Amino acid sequence: MSTRPGPVALLGGGVIGAGWAARFLLNGCDVRLYDPAPGTRDGAADVLANARAAYEQLTLAPLPPEGELRLVDSVEEAVAGVQLVQESAPEQVELKRELLAEADRAAPPDALICSSTSGLRPTELQAEMERPERFCVAHPFNPVYLLPLVELCAGERTTPETVGRAEAIFQAVGMHPLVVRSEIDGFVADRLLEALWREALWLVNDGVATVEEVDDAIRYGAGLRWAFMGTFLTYRIAGGAEGMRHFLRQFGPALEWPWTHLTEVPELTDELVETIAAQSDAQAGDRSPRELEQMRDRVLVRLLQALRAEDAGAGSTLAAWERDLLGAAPPAEADGDGGPLRFPVRRVPPDWVDYNGHVHESRYLELFADATDALLGTVGIDADYLANGGSFFTVETHLSHLRQLVAGDRVYLTTQVLDSDDKRLHVFHVLYRERETDPLATAEQMLLHVDTGSGRAAASREPVRAQVADLTERHAALPRPERAGRSIGAR
Amino acid sequence: MSTRPGPVALLGGGVIGAGWAARFLLNGCDVRLYDPAPGTRDGAADVLANARAAYEQLTLAPLPPEGELRLVDSVEEAVAGVQLVQESAPEQVELKRELLAEADRAAPPDALICSSTSGLRPTELQAEMERPERFCVAHPFNPVYLLPLVELCAGERTTPETVGRAEAIFQAVGMHPLVVRSEIDGFVADRLLEALWREALWLVNDGVATVEEVDDAIRYGAGLRWAFMGTFLTYRIAGGAEGMRHFLRQFGPALEWPWTHLTEVPELTDELVETIAAQSDAQAGDRSPRELEQMRDRVLVRLLQALRAEDAGAGSTLAAWERDLLGAAPPAEADGDGGPLRFPVRRVPPDWVDYNGHVHESRYLELFADATDALLGTVGIDADYLANGGSFFTVETHLSHLRQLVAGDRVYLTTQVLDSDDKRLHVFHVLYRERETDPLATAEQMLLHVDTGSGRAAASREPVRAQVADLTERHAALPRPERAGRSIGAR
Repeated sequence: MSTRPGPVALLGGGVIGAGWAARFLLNGCDVRLYDPAPGTRDGAADVLANARAAYEQLTLAPLPPEGELRLVDSVEEAVAGVQLVQESAPEQVELKRELLAEADRAAPPDALICSSTSGLRPTELQAEMERPERFCVAHPFNPVYLLPLVELCAGERTTPETVGRAEAIFQAVGMHPLVVRSEIDGFVADRLLEALWREALWLVNDGVATVEEVDDAIRYGAGLRWAFMGTFLTYRIAGGAEGMRHFLRQFGPALEWPWTHLTEVPELTDELVETIAAQSDAQAGDRSPRELEQMRDRVLVRLLQALRAEDAGAGSTLAAWERDLLGAAPPAEADGDGGPLRFPVRRVPPDWVDYNGHVHESRYLELFADATDALLGTVGIDADYLANGGSFFTVETHLSHLRQLVAGDRVYLTTQVLDSDDKRLHVFHVLYRERETDPLATAEQMLLHVDTGSGRAAASREPVRAQVADLTERHAALPRPERAGRSIGAR
Repeated sequence: MSTRPGPVALLGGGVIGAGWAARFLLNGCDVRLYDPAPGTRDGAADVLANARAAYEQLTLAPLPPEGELRLVDSVEEAVAGVQLVQESAPEQVELKRELLAEADRAAPPDALICSSTSGLRPTELQAEMERPERFCVAHPFNPVYLLPLVELCAGERTTPETVGRAEAIFQAVGMHPLVVRSEIDGFVADRLLEALWREALWLVNDGVATVEEVDDAIRYGAGLRWAFMGTFLTYRIAGGAEGMRHFLRQFGPALEWPWTHLTEVPELTDELVETIAAQSDAQAGDRSPRELEQMRDRVLVRLLQALRAEDAGAGSTLAAWERDLLGAAPPAEADGDGGPLRFPVRRVPPDWVDYNGHVHESRYLELFADATDALLGTVGIDADYLANGGSFFTVETHLSHLRQLVAGDRVYLTTQVLDSDDKRLHVFHVLYRERETDPLATAEQMLLHVDTGSGRAAASREPVRAQVADLTERHAALPRPERAGRSIGAR
């Protein structure tokens, strides 16, 4: 389960370092960030603001209380007492090697030390460490707080136990560790990215396509497949029943065709840089860098949620992280105190808001139906009971809208049993904003116990029957809600 | 707007040809398919079944009646009287050239002729045509019925008008045409795909990663970005405020690093083919080719919908196609005949079904709320009226569930106005399965006219006021629904 680290030391606070800060902070870890560059604090604050907005949309699972971000003035101060040091300095071997050696001398002997390098070999980076065995590469992808991939690569002097510890830690903060089997420059992902990128540069260099056309050639086509299948599974499917053997036989020869510039790297002349930069400006239009980042995050969140719904790729990683968060949260039990059942606070997700800025009326019913589900859980309707063919179905609902919800509202619900018999369960829900006592909306519901085999009403069975009766008796003393029993149209 | 072609001739019925058949048929075009290979009929039927299932999930926009698929015995029979010929034969220049010349001789002189080639030059393909000016490449991506990209590439003898016609046709069937500026082998997309693919083969060849690890390195990381941003926009964002100039300065040098096998193509030895095929089998596990295709389509549908919600990339293409479909459909006017208003049949989308196979109760309210929206449209609540600060809000809803919906049900709704005054509108909706008259569910609603500026109840204004009064009067003669005015709990 969760092996979330305690405080984390981050060395380097650029785009990658700040992304790490956001991921760790939102996963409840305190962060000590060392970066002497001016603007580190503002840059990290911007990235953290983006990450918070993204996580608000990403999940309804209960995040732990956000960690504390502290900017420190030295490597020593950053690494004192931590379990994880993550280095994200510029891609210069000497610089990284010295920084890592310094961290190694000052960090607790059992701390894990990782580098975010996107391509330098771990054997070179660990060369000057006194305890190189506890070092490995942990290479993330931008934005670090949303993309789950982290490549782990051991150097010659890294122990397997170190890689195992790194796997557990990065999994605990919602990532998908990919252990690279052998140490090579660029690992796996960046070799693939560079291959695509080099070809893209040639296309622009040769005037075959603009930067936007290159992007369009990806995002309207193969990019959609890459988001969840990668390249081999895609081609396997295209190969039909015979799979890869057929595909390689049919399309292998194309590799010999003169389709790509194999032998050269385009020279980044001033002219090519200017061409690319100008086309890129045109592509961005009047969207600021911040707006582009936020667009990127919004869409990534949607894609991750879409993949979660199909338990595919990065969506599975998200689901596993959410299960972890739910496992770590206090149990979501209804809390009575002699009054109605009270269900915990939850947040109205931003994607519930329609184009008018309103929360759709069906979403109110979604909240109330969740309270009904929770109520059924408390009276003993569980997977076993359902498997044995018993369940309560809603037959009538009376909704009253008193005040409007807005996105981001934190709400709670109360549920009172008004009446019951062996088949019927008559309940009254009230929706409140957190820390308020004026209702936002109410829902009166009649539930009918059904034999799901025959589809007919049938008496509930033990232990549900006794628990419903017990709850009904306990609630009998409560005042009857003013809006109960109401019909529409009576003035 | 829509310039959907009439009947289409497809030459070649493999994965790509069958994918074209599915896209055209589901867009209402008749298809004549010529492919002498055995198994063409079954193969096309499988692809069409996948495509139908995908479109059921993809959109609620009204698809035109499905076209008719006819397998024919000759090129002549296929192309007679068509406006579009699409060739998808194997990637052999001679074969394609002859097939295209034959189609050119037999097709109507104004028919457009396109080739699905993924990399052969149009100038070579049109060499033996009598009317080469009406030929261009139209290169789609698998699965053709879901991925929007189609690369259009003109040969030396193609007229610009031909490319323009092709753009209009492919847009009308929901695609995103990308016109390739200059004729090169592999066009734009396949040069990018091949670059990635070649590098992927090296990684497996060198034992650095398995096929599954290569795929994971893509789908947990950069693949998520490629699905909507491509490569240049991704790097621009990573470059921060300075955009591409900064990015190229910082990461340009990495192009010179020895990260990739630039100079060679891995030889597809028996051993390498066997390694890849065996790893690919392991990755597929016990999922059949058909199951993998269906997984691919389900996830692509989710991704397209996620992108549509953000109006990004391929989601924008989907939205444009849906607007086109909605524009082409008969107006969704309520139909009265003296009875209650009657709203058109719609389908219950499969993703409304929960893990128990039930449609969530909040979805019933979603259907009723849509009927309310439609009703408000018929009494004159339009964008102007809303902009002037008037609107009806639902204040109470009484839902009764009588029978259960299932996914794929086609349903219609009726709406009766029970009462109204200058502020209130009291309505009664009934939900029916298509061609049935026993209600599935009912909803009684009280709506209140609100001044959206002050948030308070306010009298409705003309022309809404008069139209509400008129409708109320027309409905006054209807029998009052049995379930109107009901409260919960009265036995």
